Amino acid sequence: MDLYFLGTGAGVPSKQRNVSSIALQLLQERGSTWLFDCGESTQHQILHTNIRPRRIEKIFITHLHGDHIFGLPGLLGSRSFQGGDTPLTVYGPKGIQAYLETSLSVSGTKLAYDLQIIEVEEGTIYEDNQLTVRCFALEHGMPSFGFCVQEHDKPGELLVDRLKEMGVQPGPIYQKIKEQPSVILESGKEIHRKDFVGKPKKGRKVCILGDTRYKEHLKSNVKDADVLVHEATFASEDEKNAYNFFHSTTKQAAQLAKDANVQRLILTHISSRYQNEAVDQLMHEAKEVFSNSEIAYDFFQTQIL
Amino acid sequence: MDLYFLGTGAGVPSKQRNVSSIALQLLQERGSTWLFDCGESTQHQILHTNIRPRRIEKIFITHLHGDHIFGLPGLLGSRSFQGGDTPLTVYGPKGIQAYLETSLSVSGTKLAYDLQIIEVEEGTIYEDNQLTVRCFALEHGMPSFGFCVQEHDKPGELLVDRLKEMGVQPGPIYQKIKEQPSVILESGKEIHRKDFVGKPKKGRKVCILGDTRYKEHLKSNVKDADVLVHEATFASEDEKNAYNFFHSTTKQAAQLAKDANVQRLILTHISSRYQNEAVDQLMHEAKEVFSNSEIAYDFFQTQIL
Repeated sequence: MDLYFLGTGAGVPSKQRNVSSIALQLLQERGSTWLFDCGESTQHQILHTNIRPRRIEKIFITHLHGDHIFGLPGLLGSRSFQGGDTPLTVYGPKGIQAYLETSLSVSGTKLAYDLQIIEVEEGTIYEDNQLTVRCFALEHGMPSFGFCVQEHDKPGELLVDRLKEMGVQPGPIYQKIKEQPSVILESGKEIHRKDFVGKPKKGRKVCILGDTRYKEHLKSNVKDADVLVHEATFASEDEKNAYNFFHSTTKQAAQLAKDANVQRLILTHISSRYQNEAVDQLMHEAKEVFSNSEIAYDFFQTQIL
Repeated sequence: MDLYFLGTGAGVPSKQRNVSSIALQLLQERGSTWLFDCGESTQHQILHTNIRPRRIEKIFITHLHGDHIFGLPGLLGSRSFQGGDTPLTVYGPKGIQAYLETSLSVSGTKLAYDLQIIEVEEGTIYEDNQLTVRCFALEHGMPSFGFCVQEHDKPGELLVDRLKEMGVQPGPIYQKIKEQPSVILESGKEIHRKDFVGKPKKGRKVCILGDTRYKEHLKSNVKDADVLVHEATFASEDEKNAYNFFHSTTKQAAQLAKDANVQRLILTHISSRYQNEAVDQLMHEAKEVFSNSEIAYDFFQTQIL
């Protein structure tokens, strides 16, 4: 599970930062990549990465501002052109369907794969035996959502050494021990799973939020996340502008991370007015409130442990 | 009058060539830039040029395939964000209005300038006292147009040396001599404009065509052009594919240039299947038929004399 930041700027592209897109790479977990937002030129950014468009399985759109969606029709078309033939689902606020249907139909774009478009509301929007995705409303100039990807807890691993000490050698019996509360061995002895299975491994939780004002109540949604990806369009001193333009400051994002007891905060959606030392200053401000803060940059890739 | 190629690839972006867009810079002529097509990431390409989005006055769309239009909503939005406040007109085939209106409205993009969208048919689509733009139908999988920008002939320059020889010194009289068929000097002598004005300067003609099959009859539209910009999606040997996919080969484009007696042919819309020596080969093929052929590349800039 890796996060790969494809675009970390705000509003308009600059030479340093493209507009918003983040890939959650789930290659080991499910052989696929999920995208969060798809600003213009996301497919161009992808050309410089190891991400294969045909492996993109789901795209989550936080909100419909152009810097978060204008790369979507092109990416969908190119995925088809490049041989992508597996289904793809786009999740986004009401309006995403009209936008995509018009763009694809006017441009005569024919997709070689099934495209499903799901207009989301708050709640669980996807669940399988591995992951659950919840979305919740933020406060922006238009409907904007945060998404939390929650990996399910994994059962503990079999304590193989302990079994071997008992004289139980590897074989189909190991699967039985994992699956059943208790098992009777060939010797006639009964053993209990709880004695031979380690602690369950807690599933990881990754929360990626769209543009938003700081709202204290959001902490319940992102509580205990392993990683919180949050916008920081403004420096701490610009709190008033942040409020007026429905955005957050560095310190507000850090406060949310702290209050919600997250492990790690990654700030993105950085305005091009901040360059070089000014970006260091943004980082410094965030760290004052929440020490495990980082500022993303285009092509920043990080593993989620 | 300069041509500045922003994207010279076909279908999907590659690391070498972005999708279609060409700027016609009319800085000396009218202090503005016209765009022809606006594939995704055109605004990103512009970041690396001296083109100012606020100076873009007109955008002509040859056809609605995604690689020619998906950069349009983002460019229009960024032009506004960056302070563009003068009117802008987009000309394109039927459907361009629905595409732009949906994209801008869904994304909540508010423009600080007047945007006019004109759905074109064959004929003269723009005319002022300097330039005329005509468009004509091509043959592609969907309606596709070529545009010819015809600069009006300019009256010849005043032959100042000859006037001075006659003892006529510079002053308001010079303007009179230019404007009136004949003028009576202070001395009482009548002089005739035709004797003191040089030859009219022929206006330049630039023709930029969208994707098209080779059609011999197109030569009447591009006749005597100073520059013909034409697609060459396929090598000469792929004539059958060119036909089937509604595109042209290098040699077909060169044949049209030759038949139409144009001065100069610039080939673009080059498929990413052609790299390095293969591109040289495309050039060679075109030159065999029409020697003044060139192959465009991204950021190729050339003056139109």
